Amino acid sequence: MEKVEQHASFGGRQEVWAHASDALGCRMKFGIYLPPAALLGEKRPVLYWLSGLTCTEQNFITKGMVQEHAARHELIVVAPDTSPRGEGVADDPAYDLGQGAGFYVDATQAPWSTHFRMQDYVSRELPALVERHFPATSVRGISGHSMGGHGALVTAMRHPGRYRSVSAFSPIVAPASVPWGQKALITYVGPDRESWKAWDACELVKAGKAGGLELLVDQGTADEFLEGQLQPQRLKEACDAAGVSCTLRLQPGYDHSYYFIASFIGDHVDHHAVALNRV
Amino acid sequence: MEKVEQHASFGGRQEVWAHASDALGCRMKFGIYLPPAALLGEKRPVLYWLSGLTCTEQNFITKGMVQEHAARHELIVVAPDTSPRGEGVADDPAYDLGQGAGFYVDATQAPWSTHFRMQDYVSRELPALVERHFPATSVRGISGHSMGGHGALVTAMRHPGRYRSVSAFSPIVAPASVPWGQKALITYVGPDRESWKAWDACELVKAGKAGGLELLVDQGTADEFLEGQLQPQRLKEACDAAGVSCTLRLQPGYDHSYYFIASFIGDHVDHHAVALNRV
Repeated sequence: MEKVEQHASFGGRQEVWAHASDALGCRMKFGIYLPPAALLGEKRPVLYWLSGLTCTEQNFITKGMVQEHAARHELIVVAPDTSPRGEGVADDPAYDLGQGAGFYVDATQAPWSTHFRMQDYVSRELPALVERHFPATSVRGISGHSMGGHGALVTAMRHPGRYRSVSAFSPIVAPASVPWGQKALITYVGPDRESWKAWDACELVKAGKAGGLELLVDQGTADEFLEGQLQPQRLKEACDAAGVSCTLRLQPGYDHSYYFIASFIGDHVDHHAVALNRV
Repeated sequence: MEKVEQHASFGGRQEVWAHASDALGCRMKFGIYLPPAALLGEKRPVLYWLSGLTCTEQNFITKGMVQEHAARHELIVVAPDTSPRGEGVADDPAYDLGQGAGFYVDATQAPWSTHFRMQDYVSRELPALVERHFPATSVRGISGHSMGGHGALVTAMRHPGRYRSVSAFSPIVAPASVPWGQKALITYVGPDRESWKAWDACELVKAGKAGGLELLVDQGTADEFLEGQLQPQRLKEACDAAGVSCTLRLQPGYDHSYYFIASFIGDHVDHHAVALNRV
């Protein structure tokens, strides 16, 4: 564990740490915001944030504007990188595959299966690390954007009881049915479409895996990927049919950028805080 | 005038425009945040923001977190680039000279005098452009960070009556007395130290140029440039001696980064709004 950045922020501290990941077999970085109470040693709940395609651990912590709201609710916020990285790690020249595009799955296909185990990393190794090294409780929430919105939804549903709260911005809700997701799944998980269902939020809802979760999803109506890649109404319909609480908010005129995330991150932190700060 | 970006943000819109600048003789970009009322056509006051060394028009609009507060007070925020740019524009390999380091002066020395006329650009050409093309009144405030904090203070004091309000984060308050400023001034303005006084906030206060302004300055105590380049107590002392209102806040543990700016930009927008929204 090596601290590579630290900055005072809203009475707390934004840090970036690097560590050798067992799950991924490479050096990884993550951002962690410690709210004022955590700096005084009080153990606080943790909101995990999963970023989208091409992002590193930097995008959300510099442009997401989460710190103000995390300080207000005294929540820790952890934002990992989006894939394994480095010279020895498989990659692809496309922006939507390989490094920067881990899709939060555990790859089974060569050459990806060696390092691309982001699901194991974000759901197991990273929380264990955070809860060992920082003043963090084991009360967890998870959110994310686009590919990371998919990651947040799928990760919460694959591990019942591990996350108290979940939300997403512009998520890929049905990766098995859209180009970004299909390309990633056939590459990382292989051609058996049945196996894709374990990585598809809509399919997990249909399979009854969302029990007890209350989903909050924000989607901009001017998002260039809305129709082709995101289609959040699929998630709303699956939740309605399964009796799962899903608040889908269509935000008029907002796009796919961090300006959109910053505008509504306060509402999402409020949503998580209700569950995470419940005694 | 060409719009190169637009993003919905906090009920308003963050835009980036490019235009051919007469003052600078090159193509320039600036960010402009239009708050909700401006989108409905209401003319609103404008807060100008001048960024620091190495920045473009992007840094503040993506990392400064100003939009939430500008929307709250219905203020337009304009953030220009920090120097002329392009193939035909003089440059220097150092990060603190040439492109990205215009220091908001009007250069008199070759080869800089051809394009490096940032003071004329930010104080005259840009406001005229903004007030002609956007729903902006001629009520103006100005703020900035580091080199841009120097720029904000000096610009407000050089043009009495042109700005109703001024503030700065981590400003270079005495460029004639510190390495960054001395290097810039000797290069752009020449070796005559007497001529530097017109570009030095402390000297301008001493010369009685701060009449009517109420200065708000925030400075992090963990800022690596505090002692060597910034020395804000010089400004406080000059203001106290001249009877000028100057609130200097030393923020414990904060550094020179945008995490610092984001943490306190709300207070600065409040400070400007008191003056700018006065009828």
